[in-house]
Formats: sequence, structure tokens, C-alpha cells
Amino acid sequence: MTKQDLFQHILQKQSFLCVGLDTDIEKIPPHLLREQDPVFAFNQAIVEATAPFCVAYKPNLAFYESQGIEGQRSLENIVAYIRRNYPEQFIIADAKRGDIGNTSERYARAVFDHGEYDAVTVAPYMGEDSVKPFLIYPGKWVILLALTSNKGSQDFQLTTGADGEKLYEKVLKRSQEWAGDEQMMYVVGATNEDQFEHIRKIVPHHFLLVPGVGAQGGSLEKVAKYGMNKQCGLLVNSSRQILYADSTEKFAEAAAAEAQRIQKEMAIYLQWLKKEK
Amino acid sequence: MTKQDLFQHILQKQSFLCVGLDTDIEKIPPHLLREQDPVFAFNQAIVEATAPFCVAYKPNLAFYESQGIEGQRSLENIVAYIRRNYPEQFIIADAKRGDIGNTSERYARAVFDHGEYDAVTVAPYMGEDSVKPFLIYPGKWVILLALTSNKGSQDFQLTTGADGEKLYEKVLKRSQEWAGDEQMMYVVGATNEDQFEHIRKIVPHHFLLVPGVGAQGGSLEKVAKYGMNKQCGLLVNSSRQILYADSTEKFAEAAAAEAQRIQKEMAIYLQWLKKEK
Repeated sequence: MTKQDLFQHILQKQSFLCVGLDTDIEKIPPHLLREQDPVFAFNQAIVEATAPFCVAYKPNLAFYESQGIEGQRSLENIVAYIRRNYPEQFIIADAKRGDIGNTSERYARAVFDHGEYDAVTVAPYMGEDSVKPFLIYPGKWVILLALTSNKGSQDFQLTTGADGEKLYEKVLKRSQEWAGDEQMMYVVGATNEDQFEHIRKIVPHHFLLVPGVGAQGGSLEKVAKYGMNKQCGLLVNSSRQILYADSTEKFAEAAAAEAQRIQKEMAIYLQWLKKEK
Repeated sequence: MTKQDLFQHILQKQSFLCVGLDTDIEKIPPHLLREQDPVFAFNQAIVEATAPFCVAYKPNLAFYESQGIEGQRSLENIVAYIRRNYPEQFIIADAKRGDIGNTSERYARAVFDHGEYDAVTVAPYMGEDSVKPFLIYPGKWVILLALTSNKGSQDFQLTTGADGEKLYEKVLKRSQEWAGDEQMMYVVGATNEDQFEHIRKIVPHHFLLVPGVGAQGGSLEKVAKYGMNKQCGLLVNSSRQILYADSTEKFAEAAAAEAQRIQKEMAIYLQWLKKEK
């Protein structure tokens, strides 16, 4: 999917919401446990309910890997289901992969050849040759970790170098030598509201994938205010807040209502783009 | 497995070799493609041939993930096979995982609850709360990336902070606040020979997992000379050099010969421990 396609989809839906499929078998409504594949049934219902209000889905691979092969099968099936029924949706493998070249090449095959994802999250610690193998797939995206939403982001990402640059700034700058804004996005946590204006100076045109709104405490309004660019440039993720809005048979309706609530708020912020013209 | 158990196994085998199971279906001998599960058949033969000469196996998850569910099944089967037949072997999930707490928790379950691994490689970029969920399993190990063997290690790991510390040094120091040398090891690439002496000053007692000998060009002798401590403290990995020593029906014999050649060299270096006493 091109950047322009993604932007058009955002304008059409009046939403830049990404629904995180962090599906936890221990949290899904009990009546679904009677299904042959409860995780797939839950995700299918969530996708059907939320698709009108979002532009992207982000399965979190850890939640499926922790269920072994059964979990992997649920995951493949839900990705195939979205691809088939909602081809306009941007599908992100939230995997945080990254290894030496010949190994990253395999991870890339896993998500882009064998898998049907549009994008994969990648960790930058191992540098250029650990990221480049993900960049050879036309129309596919790398979403590189820059400044994450968790407390541990302070341990290394926010440490300052001898050159005065913080590590995450170095990642933002250095990685622009590897690919441009048509192939790369960055993870910037909503909990770092105060850094968005500064980050936009380093990566004015890139899309940012923003976790941390909702359960982790970030503010959507501030992210939009300081993070939006002319092509929106934001995919704001919400997972738990939507998935587990209700734990009864009405979970899908509740998820739809929550996704719509966020979409409506996003529609207000998207008006700002018109005013700028 | 405790550190003492691992050291005893090293003394008994006179080896600190870890065999990396980076099994590539495109590189295994053609006659195995007739097997129901060629990847499992190859790995089984490799393990049988090399077990007398090594103390650890390190399946590289990317190679199995790139084959989808079939690959996952081969992987589960080979880990179960090693666990059952060679319970003394230390099994490392080379996964380079790391995410926010609730997600790392799932990755930890994937390798330690659902999986039967002794250890998992973890990327430090997201900091303390991304690593800690892997540390709650008694007898299980985190192997944290410090200074990797690839060219990209220069991009961020070797950059110097305002405090004069390189990023990988910061990782080595900071992470010692999270766990000690009975629960944590570090990845240090053999290609960084000149850093081993220095690294041993920061982590004198830890085990180091050392990739990069062989195909990547590192020297086993130098790693042993500068990296060994009183309990050996080294697991040196070899993958391609052993797995693909021969591409005919004699591949397993060739793998055994190559593993034995490395083991014999290691036995010489292990003599240094006696002299120190």
C-alpha cells in the first residue's frame, strides 16, 4: 500500500485509528470458548464491528505465539480474513523483529512472503543490515521503533550521546539514510507527548505509529495537535480499550461503540487539515 | 539449568560449543526432501551427530517462522526431541524478542511455558520493563543483546554517550540491576575481539553467548583468550559451518567432524582453567 493510498483511506473513513489485536484467550467472553477457534471467532467479530471506524489492524504476534501452533493458525486465519474481506485495511505485524542480515531476511519472508502483512515493526538495536532485508518488498513497510510508550524507553532511548543527540533521535536520523517516508514509519509512544513537536522537526513527512493512548495514559488530542502532518501522518493504536470494552455477548457492539467514539474524535482533528489548505 | 550445571557440562564434554540450528530448507541435502518433515529429519541427524561435541543448541526462530505453521511444527518437534533425548543440552530460543511488559510476558510464555527452552535472546532497546517478564521463570535465562557480530552493531551499539559510555556498555551495566549472572547472559559477537578484555571488566562472571566465529570471520582463539573466565563463561556458536559442512548424504558425518574439530580446539583452551588453579 502506498502512502497516498493510506492517506486517502484515512480521509474516506475520517479516522486514523489502528485496532491492536492483542487477543488474550483469558479475556475473551466465555460464550466464545465453545467455538472451534475462540481466538479467531473473537477477532472476526471485532474486525466486523470495528472496520467502519479504523484504517489498520495490528495483530500483536506475542499473544498468538504464546498459544503455540494453535495460536499461529488463529493468527494466519484472521490475517487472511481481513485481507479477503477488508482489502483496504493496512495490516501491521507487531513483531519487533531484528537480527543479522541473513536472519532478518527470514523474518521478512515470514511476514511478507508467507504472511500477508503490509508492515512489520522492527527494533533498531542491531543497525542498518538488520533492517534493510525488510525493505526490499515493494509496497511493504518497516515501522522502526524510535521512542516507545513504556517506562523502559527512558533506559536507553532517552539517553544522550556525546554529540548531544538522544538515542531515539539518532535512530530517526540515521534510518532516513536507509529508506524514505514511502517505506518507513516510526513507533512513537503517545506517552511522550512533549516530544512530538520535536520529532516532527526530524521526520516531518513520515507516518508515525502511536501506541499508548488509552490503557497506557496518552492523550489523543495532544498527539493529533503536535504529531499530525499534511497527510495526517498518524496511525494511533488502541487495543485493550476496544477489545475488552465489554466482557459479555455484547462485546462486539461495545467494541464498535468505542472504536466509533475514537473515530469521531479523530474526525474533529482531521478538520484541521482543511483549515491549513 | 543453573550456571554450575552448565559449567559441569562444559568440563565433561570439554566443549563450550553451541550449535546454531539456522536450518534452511533450501540448503539441506536433496535426499531429505523425500522425508515427511525434511527440516526435522535434517535437524535430528545434526543433533545426533553433534551432541557428543557440544553443550547447547540454538534454533534460530526466523528460519522456522519463514516456513509458516509447518516450520513452527518442525521447530516444536526438534526442541522436544532434544529435550527428551539430550536433557543435558542447554536450548536457546534465538528470538531477539522485547516489547512492552504485557507483551514480553507473552513472549516469555511462548518460549518458557509453551516452549521447552532454557534461554531466550532478548533485545534491550525498550529497557527494563521489556526484559523483566522473561526473568520470572526459575532456572531459565535471558541472553541480552549487548554487542552483536554484524556491521550494523556500529550504528548504535558503539555510539558514545555524553557520559563517555558506549551504548552496549550502558546495556551491560544497567541490566545488572535487573538480574545477576545466574539468570542473565549477554550476546557479544566474536567479530568484536578487541572489546572482550574490556567487556570482561564490566561483566567478569557472566556467561557470554558468542556468535560470529566461522562464516562471519571471528577467531575462536582470541575469543577464548580474552573472553574466558573461571567458569569458562563462554558459549561459542557455530551454525552454517557445521550444518552445511557437506551437502550430500554424508552431511551428518561432516557436521560431526566439524563439531569435533571445534571441540578439540576448545579442549585446548579449557586447559587454561586448570593452569589458573
